[in-house]
Amino acid sequence: MTLDPEAGANHAPARPDKHFHRIGSFEPELGGFLEDVTLAYETWGELDSTGENAVLVVHALTGDSHCSGGAAETYKRGGWWDEMVGPGRPVDTDESFVVCSNVLGGCSGSTGPASVDPETGRPFGMRFPVVTIRDIVRAQRRLLDELGVRRLRTVIGGSIGGQQALEWAVEYPGFVDKIVPVAATGALGPQGLGMSEIGRRAIMADPNWRGGDYYGEEKGPETGLAIARMAGMMTYQSAAGQWERFERKPASRPALYEEFGGRFEVESYLHYQGRDLAGRFDANSYLYLTRAMDLYDVGAGYASQEEAYSRIEAEMLFVGISSDWLFPAAEVRGVAEKARAAGVEARYQEIESPNGHDAFLKDWDELRAAVRPFLSE
Amino acid sequence: MTLDPEAGANHAPARPDKHFHRIGSFEPELGGFLEDVTLAYETWGELDSTGENAVLVVHALTGDSHCSGGAAETYKRGGWWDEMVGPGRPVDTDESFVVCSNVLGGCSGSTGPASVDPETGRPFGMRFPVVTIRDIVRAQRRLLDELGVRRLRTVIGGSIGGQQALEWAVEYPGFVDKIVPVAATGALGPQGLGMSEIGRRAIMADPNWRGGDYYGEEKGPETGLAIARMAGMMTYQSAAGQWERFERKPASRPALYEEFGGRFEVESYLHYQGRDLAGRFDANSYLYLTRAMDLYDVGAGYASQEEAYSRIEAEMLFVGISSDWLFPAAEVRGVAEKARAAGVEARYQEIESPNGHDAFLKDWDELRAAVRPFLSE
Repeated sequence: MTLDPEAGANHAPARPDKHFHRIGSFEPELGGFLEDVTLAYETWGELDSTGENAVLVVHALTGDSHCSGGAAETYKRGGWWDEMVGPGRPVDTDESFVVCSNVLGGCSGSTGPASVDPETGRPFGMRFPVVTIRDIVRAQRRLLDELGVRRLRTVIGGSIGGQQALEWAVEYPGFVDKIVPVAATGALGPQGLGMSEIGRRAIMADPNWRGGDYYGEEKGPETGLAIARMAGMMTYQSAAGQWERFERKPASRPALYEEFGGRFEVESYLHYQGRDLAGRFDANSYLYLTRAMDLYDVGAGYASQEEAYSRIEAEMLFVGISSDWLFPAAEVRGVAEKARAAGVEARYQEIESPNGHDAFLKDWDELRAAVRPFLSE
Repeated sequence: MTLDPEAGANHAPARPDKHFHRIGSFEPELGGFLEDVTLAYETWGELDSTGENAVLVVHALTGDSHCSGGAAETYKRGGWWDEMVGPGRPVDTDESFVVCSNVLGGCSGSTGPASVDPETGRPFGMRFPVVTIRDIVRAQRRLLDELGVRRLRTVIGGSIGGQQALEWAVEYPGFVDKIVPVAATGALGPQGLGMSEIGRRAIMADPNWRGGDYYGEEKGPETGLAIARMAGMMTYQSAAGQWERFERKPASRPALYEEFGGRFEVESYLHYQGRDLAGRFDANSYLYLTRAMDLYDVGAGYASQEEAYSRIEAEMLFVGISSDWLFPAAEVRGVAEKARAAGVEARYQEIESPNGHDAFLKDWDELRAAVRPFLSE
């Protein structure tokens, strides 16, 4: 299995808009050392002479730097947040210089476990250091500094991107005006941790995972990664949404696995989602990024979560999704309340949707309505 | 991997109270043929001369026939419903002749995929026919007939056992006075189906599964079965219950897998639960029984669910668990309402508990309070 680091999630040969920036060496907070870190990124709009009209959009687990733009020859898929980011959209590329970079540890052009370790000349695999949300954010900051950004108007993102947005608020107070964490809290709950671990175990149980050293082999742990994705998909949807969409209907698409007592549509859906991700994502990145999501605790390194929240200077808008069970709305609201109690100007908006966690990638009208007033004030 | 069919879930050498009854040949409703079916069972109390004082207790996915009795030399674990079944308990062995049998397709003494196919002299493996809840119930009926039971006072069980109880009501109206399905509905929802399939995929992806023909091999698909169990455990607990029990605490027990960025207690719990089941249960049985649970639709073979419910003559008590997400309380209540609408004397009781689906194996006081009045009337 080989991954073209420049192709990433879109598997397109040429990416005229995708840039690669070497931010130099990097010390992850939990240990280890990276001699030479590259971040892949894209930008939209123009940075003005003050360097203060920038917006950072942060992607979710399996996303990449391509948050805006329609599907095209060079991008099989359009931007993953195209409905949110563009001319006249809530993140307005006419007014702002918008940056989106692939996360540290990712597999869509930024340095991650699939990258070559300059010390050995071989891909890192599991020798890649554990990276945290804070590491990911610090690397983003380095990129922005080198692009000439002196201040951010906004940081916005959902899920693990929402964790990054929140961490931006705590780590760099005074650098950002407004921050919008969507469908994310200060720390993932045990149900999310458990589902995350089930996925990792499926990858690591795949004999083709080979302890992480599958690069260059004929076959990688696609089977394990597909199962991990299935487990992930369960956490992205709600029971009500699945009843609505799948009921107990028999599968309508051809079987990807041998039949065993028939197949329900929800199973078939999971199979296809699993296969799709396995064809476009690096399994080791999946391990590292889910671990980063698990490990994130906004209070880590501070005396308490309260102390962390009290550092925040940006105006915050937390967005919860009524049917989310990965980051339940009640917990998102709770974070907004804790932040307010710590003196932060923090609002909370809830999207009513049966689509679960995934609503931040689906319910465009509701999402725009939730964030546009805050961003345009 | 070998399983002693007489040891089953308890791995004890001698089982003086466990009996094996050959019910003869059997035709599963979805096709196939079993020449010679054995059911393992245990009984408590005495059948009176009328043959009408019997109670059938039906076990859940990984249970067995040992529902009553304390832990002893011959049973590492005590009866899985000992708090519910015994002298003076809600299922009173002083008054009733209580029967509990291992399900058809199981691995604790009854005929299942680990049994030897008399035609080939080799274990069935995946050549075992798909069995349904109705098949399981029909096999139980055969056993009871041959034990001289002419009428049942009660059928009671939880989860897939609750599905069996409901099916008893529909399949054999007039044979049972009272039926108590606990934490079960007339058809599992898509979220449950999805989680079930993730577990099966993990088993079938294990190279030691060998298409189901791992019997007699040095190693079976214990790794895959452990992951399947982890996915199952997630559906047996609630988010609130897991917060209460695990929070985000680091693991306190020794690691079963290589460390990767630390370990949370909930992960460690899942690992141990997975390993435990993998050491005592047959992976193929896990595939077949989860499939039976998925496939169950109370309306199958009838014009509608309503028609199925209208067949019921027994008094029904449906018990839901407030935090259950495998069989949500609202859906259990819905079944009771549908049954009532079809003319059935059906009640609904809800157990308030943070313990999720598992509450029917944990919250003894609440469970006894919910069912005792109904059973003792």
